[in-house]
Amino acid sequence: MSGRYDFASDNVAPAAPEALAALARFNTGFAPAYGSDAVTAQAADLVRAFLDADAQVHFVASGTAANAIALAALCRPFDAVLAHEHAHICTDETGAPGLFGHGLGLIPLPGGSGKLTPESLAGPLSQPHLAHRQSAAALSVTNATEYGTVYDSNELAAVVRPAREKGLGVHFDGARLANAVAAGFDAKSLRHYCDIAVFGGTKAGGTPAEAIVIFDPELRSRFDARLKQAGQLPSKARFYAAPFIGLLEDGALLRHAAHANTMARRLADRLPFPIRHAVEANAVFADIDEPTLARIHASGWFVHRFLDGSVRFMCSWATTPEAVDELGDAMRGLA
Amino acid sequence: MSGRYDFASDNVAPAAPEALAALARFNTGFAPAYGSDAVTAQAADLVRAFLDADAQVHFVASGTAANAIALAALCRPFDAVLAHEHAHICTDETGAPGLFGHGLGLIPLPGGSGKLTPESLAGPLSQPHLAHRQSAAALSVTNATEYGTVYDSNELAAVVRPAREKGLGVHFDGARLANAVAAGFDAKSLRHYCDIAVFGGTKAGGTPAEAIVIFDPELRSRFDARLKQAGQLPSKARFYAAPFIGLLEDGALLRHAAHANTMARRLADRLPFPIRHAVEANAVFADIDEPTLARIHASGWFVHRFLDGSVRFMCSWATTPEAVDELGDAMRGLA
Amino acid sequence: MSGRYDFASDNVAPAAPEALAALARFNTGFAPAYGSDAVTAQAADLVRAFLDADAQVHFVASGTAANAIALAALCRPFDAVLAHEHAHICTDETGAPGLFGHGLGLIPLPGGSGKLTPESLAGPLSQPHLAHRQSAAALSVTNATEYGTVYDSNELAAVVRPAREKGLGVHFDGARLANAVAAGFDAKSLRHYCDIAVFGGTKAGGTPAEAIVIFDPELRSRFDARLKQAGQLPSKARFYAAPFIGLLEDGALLRHAAHANTMARRLADRLPFPIRHAVEANAVFADIDEPTLARIHASGWFVHRFLDGSVRFMCSWATTPEAVDELGDAMRGLA
Amino acid sequence: MSGRYDFASDNVAPAAPEALAALARFNTGFAPAYGSDAVTAQAADLVRAFLDADAQVHFVASGTAANAIALAALCRPFDAVLAHEHAHICTDETGAPGLFGHGLGLIPLPGGSGKLTPESLAGPLSQPHLAHRQSAAALSVTNATEYGTVYDSNELAAVVRPAREKGLGVHFDGARLANAVAAGFDAKSLRHYCDIAVFGGTKAGGTPAEAIVIFDPELRSRFDARLKQAGQLPSKARFYAAPFIGLLEDGALLRHAAHANTMARRLADRLPFPIRHAVEANAVFADIDEPTLARIHASGWFVHRFLDGSVRFMCSWATTPEAVDELGDAMRGLA
Repeated sequence: MSGRYDFASDNVAPAAPEALAALARFNTGFAPAYGSDAVTAQAADLVRAFLDADAQVHFVASGTAANAIALAALCRPFDAVLAHEHAHICTDETGAPGLFGHGLGLIPLPGGSGKLTPESLAGPLSQPHLAHRQSAAALSVTNATEYGTVYDSNELAAVVRPAREKGLGVHFDGARLANAVAAGFDAKSLRHYCDIAVFGGTKAGGTPAEAIVIFDPELRSRFDARLKQAGQLPSKARFYAAPFIGLLEDGALLRHAAHANTMARRLADRLPFPIRHAVEANAVFADIDEPTLARIHASGWFVHRFLDGSVRFMCSWATTPEAVDELGDAMRGLA
Repeated sequence: MSGRYDFASDNVAPAAPEALAALARFNTGFAPAYGSDAVTAQAADLVRAFLDADAQVHFVASGTAANAIALAALCRPFDAVLAHEHAHICTDETGAPGLFGHGLGLIPLPGGSGKLTPESLAGPLSQPHLAHRQSAAALSVTNATEYGTVYDSNELAAVVRPAREKGLGVHFDGARLANAVAAGFDAKSLRHYCDIAVFGGTKAGGTPAEAIVIFDPELRSRFDARLKQAGQLPSKARFYAAPFIGLLEDGALLRHAAHANTMARRLADRLPFPIRHAVEANAVFADIDEPTLARIHASGWFVHRFLDGSVRFMCSWATTPEAVDELGDAMRGLA
Repeated sequence: MSGRYDFASDNVAPAAPEALAALARFNTGFAPAYGSDAVTAQAADLVRAFLDADAQVHFVASGTAANAIALAALCRPFDAVLAHEHAHICTDETGAPGLFGHGLGLIPLPGGSGKLTPESLAGPLSQPHLAHRQSAAALSVTNATEYGTVYDSNELAAVVRPAREKGLGVHFDGARLANAVAAGFDAKSLRHYCDIAVFGGTKAGGTPAEAIVIFDPELRSRFDARLKQAGQLPSKARFYAAPFIGLLEDGALLRHAAHANTMARRLADRLPFPIRHAVEANAVFADIDEPTLARIHASGWFVHRFLDGSVRFMCSWATTPEAVDELGDAMRGLA
Repeated sequence: MSGRYDFASDNVAPAAPEALAALARFNTGFAPAYGSDAVTAQAADLVRAFLDADAQVHFVASGTAANAIALAALCRPFDAVLAHEHAHICTDETGAPGLFGHGLGLIPLPGGSGKLTPESLAGPLSQPHLAHRQSAAALSVTNATEYGTVYDSNELAAVVRPAREKGLGVHFDGARLANAVAAGFDAKSLRHYCDIAVFGGTKAGGTPAEAIVIFDPELRSRFDARLKQAGQLPSKARFYAAPFIGLLEDGALLRHAAHANTMARRLADRLPFPIRHAVEANAVFADIDEPTLARIHASGWFVHRFLDGSVRFMCSWATTPEAVDELGDAMRGLA
């Protein structure tokens, strides 16, 4: 068989039809560049409505850049960001926060199944400022988490509250916000405890597109220049706004996310391996020993061992029940 | 009348049908992420064939980022880049080279109609290194230039040669490479005198996409990590490769560029203003006084006064003869 | 004869006896590190008294670093600093503001004899913010200027006022503040229109030491961490504070500066060349053609041709009338 | 009693008489600035002789800056440095490597008593390069270590060898090189396995001064500009060179270091607490519970709990046997 990437990540999927149709629909006529066009305005309105927030919205190409730019807006180079030790910014972005933030620090914190807790933050938040180390100036939280678990709104608010009380800014990495919302997270709660968020379109069925959502008015000034300097103020901006319109205007975003979540639960039921974390979003993490993983790879299925030692299977809007069942059958044959 | 942006820039145009069709064509099935997919490989082959070069090719989202990343690869922070004083990197990228290059310097040089000459470089290249200033380590050239003029291959080689002899790296900003080639520039000459180039897709009729082309093997190591840290290693990479396939596989790129160039010459013939620079690519620069420009703006046509004091009219693949004539008529009414 | 560096700069001089004596005086016993020692506290009090200001004071090793760190505190990377085109930060610091400021921009402005005027600032201050370029967020002024001229307090206040009204921060480069004050500038005026200043000790007769003086309370937070990350939070801090005590406690700083200024005027009277700029501080700039300068260098006197084309002769606390007369005689022999 | 800082660190000590005398001795006449003076040349010769190496030597003000600049010379921003998890660069420099290195990463590694071993490096060195994380491009080693232990030359060579074989650059943090050499480390071995080193003067009895020693010729180009941009090319350079002359010309450096090491062993014998690490250089780390430490602080002795949980007592050239005995007596009264 040829290689099967379906479950390697949710960014191996094509764009959903609604996103691609919107690209085509808005590909007519001339439009002002750099985000002053009507398509961008309409998409920003849809994002604001989704979050029920009077936020400033910018559409960019890259989640890595979006996260790093947001953190650079929250921190000075001698400040640090508190984040889960396996957060994407800590483990998978090649030090982008340090590049865009000019050396800003990351303080990785432990936490079960990708979640921070008020307890895991208590120690770091009680540290006095010292000239000799980077002190925390921001907290970064991710929902759905890297381990496919989901904070509910109260839970996340409880994690964030002590940081806010200490004066830290709050960054929300919503690369899989859609999956979290489909699992019950209230997107409209973000405006109450978040200063700046990245709302992911790419993994949600879009062509590459992410929205930076600025809740805190003090962070908004000259943000267009900040983005331009960082290579994230697209000239043909409508192509980053259009997929958000396609995904948001009639609910496709949440339909697709709910489907992906359902596929993950279906897969968890069919895998012959112990499941490591609660399957609340679109990922399944299974305990698989090295010889078994080698057999899985040899049979053509590309899945990755993760930082916690388990193996990740991702579902997406494009995952079919048939593919899940085929994978489940294959795994049972290899276990 | 409503606002007319047609001639404000070539990035106000939609994507050409070939680019959008390719996006749709490759939007099927699952593909490995981050550039290891077959679509990216095919597009890179087409870029190499277009340039007749055994180069390493990366597709990214932004020309500003691509230029800045290329310059950061050529220079250390205490080095500087020689460039035309009105080059895009000097005037329109909000200091992106300094951000990505950690403070690297730009040394702006004069030159008629956007072109550098061996004479304009002679002084800067003869400067001794001093600890107290950033010394030139790279030369950046742009073709077609910001003023719609085009270096031919020998002319550009003559500009670049003394810099190479001094050991400087050479960066080529090809945001409008297609227009230059349609005007006679030999793209296959680049490999002889260029270390790293940015080959523009966006203004050439693409959805947002640029190619970084690395000729110098010494610049290639870990370039994927360099891009990832800079937020320019797209996960769904095929969407940045596909438009290059659409534009390159059957010659649409050059057809569209030739059309844009033709439209610019047509426009130059119809404008009732003195034309400032030779119309060799897709731009026309006209001498227009402030009251006249105010009337032009008041009548709904968005065009910009440029750094040399003239007013720029840009054509693109989407410019029609009818629109050119309509604009010409309107201008004659306002002159 | 052997080389004569006396007039090459004011940093070729040794330390004044008062500075060196203070180093020795405070070189006893153990002292807490990193600026929490009593010597540092005493020196900071003397600086505050000199400036009649309730400022936060940090002693550092380098004027280049001090300027760059101050500008980084005032600007974000997508902001720019307005400064005289021949200001030290623009011409002699190898892009340090860009390194410490992560790519922040410098906007060089013209102005006679090293001085900015309200007129030279009017255009730049009226520029609207655009995403595509770095907009001014700070103004940097230098007194005494690079050309040995001196703003009086009202003159400088008039230059700064329109920038402050536009919301720009103000940085004061006081590498030669002592010479300016000896020439009549009121150091106690700084607190009214300056956010952050660098008060130079090195050229004023110190061992290497500069003071960063923070007037604006909003810039003070975690400044110790900012300095530590930038390599400018000295462990044995007393050695940077002591020379300020030596120079300030009994007026040596101004005595030495007045002497240097007097020597410059004496030299101007004796040089057989046209004098380019008003001799108000400790520098003399003379019009000297290239063959004559070659003869000067050949006879062993090291002086530099400057950016405005004239040749600079610097005096310092250590310049003697005899040396001035010797130089004058020598120059008359070579003219 | 008043506060006693004697044992808080080795940077609380004054400068040794030889260092201060050299400052005074060379404080005569005019000298070219920025390191082209004879004092700097003489000090560089002494450093080369001490290390028996044909190295390029630069004198700077700050060890933190020196380390960070050296690492920035070895790594690109998307590279990382392997270092002991408690190395000064990882724990006490406020992210300076990230500031000077534009976001370069640090990969902290465990190791007993501050030492790395070939075993602790084996895993990190076997990691394949991935675009998604910063890959190791350099190894940083410290001798004497942060825990007062000392690698001998063979031991250090064995740690470094596998890194060099993988192509990593090697940085040596010699803030306490003198103490290591006094304990038996062969300084002349460094040239065989080290690319760039920081040779500490400050803690060795100097006024603030460190030497950057560049063994690898490829790292030398434009290093003066690198330093100037980083605020570490002193104008009055002789004041950073002179203490090295004073300390090196007649062996004071090693005499003082040997004394400090002896004092540490004397102290270890007198402390009534378990000693955590081998006392090989000038530090003693003792196991002290929190109530006892509180009593120690209350009685006026300033010592710090360290990252490994033990409490550090530092000796220096200025530590007297009497003070050691006084401290020992005091501690026995508080234990």
